[in-house]
Amino acid sequence: MDTLQNRQVWLASRPNGIPATTDFAVRKADIPKLGEGEILVRNRFLSADPAMRGWIVDKSTYWPRIEIGDTMRSFAVGEIVESRNPDYAAGERVMGLFGWQDFAAAGAAQITRKVTEDDLPLSLALGVLGVNGLTAYFGLLDVGRPKSGETVVVSTAAGGVGSAVGQIARIRGCRTVGVAGGPDKVRQCLEQFGYDAAIDYKAPSDLDDALRRACPGGIDVFFDNTSGAIHDAVLRQINVGARIAICGTASYASWEPWNQGPRPERHLLVTRAIMQGFLVTDFAPRFREAIDDLAGWVREGRLKYREHILDGIEQAPGSIEKLYAGGNDGKLLIRL
Amino acid sequence: MDTLQNRQVWLASRPNGIPATTDFAVRKADIPKLGEGEILVRNRFLSADPAMRGWIVDKSTYWPRIEIGDTMRSFAVGEIVESRNPDYAAGERVMGLFGWQDFAAAGAAQITRKVTEDDLPLSLALGVLGVNGLTAYFGLLDVGRPKSGETVVVSTAAGGVGSAVGQIARIRGCRTVGVAGGPDKVRQCLEQFGYDAAIDYKAPSDLDDALRRACPGGIDVFFDNTSGAIHDAVLRQINVGARIAICGTASYASWEPWNQGPRPERHLLVTRAIMQGFLVTDFAPRFREAIDDLAGWVREGRLKYREHILDGIEQAPGSIEKLYAGGNDGKLLIRL
Repeated sequence: MDTLQNRQVWLASRPNGIPATTDFAVRKADIPKLGEGEILVRNRFLSADPAMRGWIVDKSTYWPRIEIGDTMRSFAVGEIVESRNPDYAAGERVMGLFGWQDFAAAGAAQITRKVTEDDLPLSLALGVLGVNGLTAYFGLLDVGRPKSGETVVVSTAAGGVGSAVGQIARIRGCRTVGVAGGPDKVRQCLEQFGYDAAIDYKAPSDLDDALRRACPGGIDVFFDNTSGAIHDAVLRQINVGARIAICGTASYASWEPWNQGPRPERHLLVTRAIMQGFLVTDFAPRFREAIDDLAGWVREGRLKYREHILDGIEQAPGSIEKLYAGGNDGKLLIRL
Repeated sequence: MDTLQNRQVWLASRPNGIPATTDFAVRKADIPKLGEGEILVRNRFLSADPAMRGWIVDKSTYWPRIEIGDTMRSFAVGEIVESRNPDYAAGERVMGLFGWQDFAAAGAAQITRKVTEDDLPLSLALGVLGVNGLTAYFGLLDVGRPKSGETVVVSTAAGGVGSAVGQIARIRGCRTVGVAGGPDKVRQCLEQFGYDAAIDYKAPSDLDDALRRACPGGIDVFFDNTSGAIHDAVLRQINVGARIAICGTASYASWEPWNQGPRPERHLLVTRAIMQGFLVTDFAPRFREAIDDLAGWVREGRLKYREHILDGIEQAPGSIEKLYAGGNDGKLLIRL
């Protein structure tokens, strides 16, 4: 059975910025043998996320850097074909860090969760019911802590995380303002994701002016996926007691060395604001609660999502480059 | 009675950096008449604080900027000589924003608190039992949230705020590391304020190396009074989950325009750290609880302080310049 070969996308060279197609190669490998406590997962969808740039490039990150020769780390979703772990049974569906490959042997540490929303598409477990949705949920509600009536600004507002942030903030009664790149994404923000206002940061008009018009009462919560010029402009208009959730820094291709910019210390002091970085994995004990909320909102039609699905593992090597070029329209997935 | 004239130190010109002696002038004025609800305070000690630079210079601050011709805003302590407020009686001692002058007419909004620690020197109500001590107390305990066994780093560690932060952190069971300028202040940190280690940031040795040696387990809490190079060096060595309390930015004479430096966003994300600005005045409802703790520690000899007292109101105009030049040895006060 030729499908029972394991194709793996591995890191062939280390870029100093955005990983390109040519930084990866595809190899064939045996189906892994299971150790005690492991499960064998057949991946059905692989994820491509902006954070993967940092996993490859940055020396200082929250996980060990990916070495040349390693199969690319990624979230993936699939079904269990064999189990040597009493908590998991063949046939069950799971999401976790299974890598860019057809088959993965995974221990408990790699498994993020069982996927039990059988009425919803499996691919959602990598998007709005996966790391994107969970990141939006905890970053907004636990780090941003919006109160009804407050103004929430989101960067990369039409993206997989940003679009969920905007919609959850709206569900919580906030005024939501999205910052996105280009007229198509601005239109998605307004028409599909229900933002009260959306700003095209690529437009020639002044970003400070646009924010002032969109946020007449100032900014209470900033969910930041970009750093850089958008971050700086938002910071200038935060209210006293604002919360700034640092989720991503997509406007820079590298942080070696640290990028320079205006120092926030004085303004944080004057506004008594909080700037806080977070990682969704720190909230793992509460994933079930969040998935129940998110799935409920999806079923009610209050939490919309877009997916951009590429077919075939050979699409994986170019997917990170595609993300950073803004060439995706929705959560980018590779279907196997 | 010639003492019943009111001498006032007023802002005569606006500096663009550290206010100099010549930016102020002294005038004579009448004793103010009281409105309904006001008290007449005879000031005994005036405060000189680093924050007063910002009140004069910065356009964007937490209080209205001091205008040319205004009597200089400052904390002061004295006794009530007349009261038209039923909550206050002549003879009681009060601390508040009474300004650089002999007599002040103060409404409830200007009064920080009654001073009832009759067994302790009145001047302490401007230092370790005043804004300095309260700033240390709430900034460390509420913003920094140190746990026993954690490492706390303090900048301007021998100063009025910093020395209290270090001692409170020690009382709470932390390893305390002070950063101060010059061998005398380093000695005070070690001998008087009980820091486990102290670093002279003016010494030629490398600050990163010195921090690494002083904080072998990394840094959990940073109480920052300086911003600038010390801030950057500490940030590079924070642990996962660190808390950075932004109390002051004394290493810069001006924030118009914002100073530039390394962007913290990526590092805050990787370490899931919190950077938070705060103002002690936001904690006013809890001042009583803090003063009780602080006064208790002073009486027990666990919270030590240094005072640098200048005699006569004519010393006030040069006091801010003196602070920024590091020419004070302890909390700087003007005795009337």
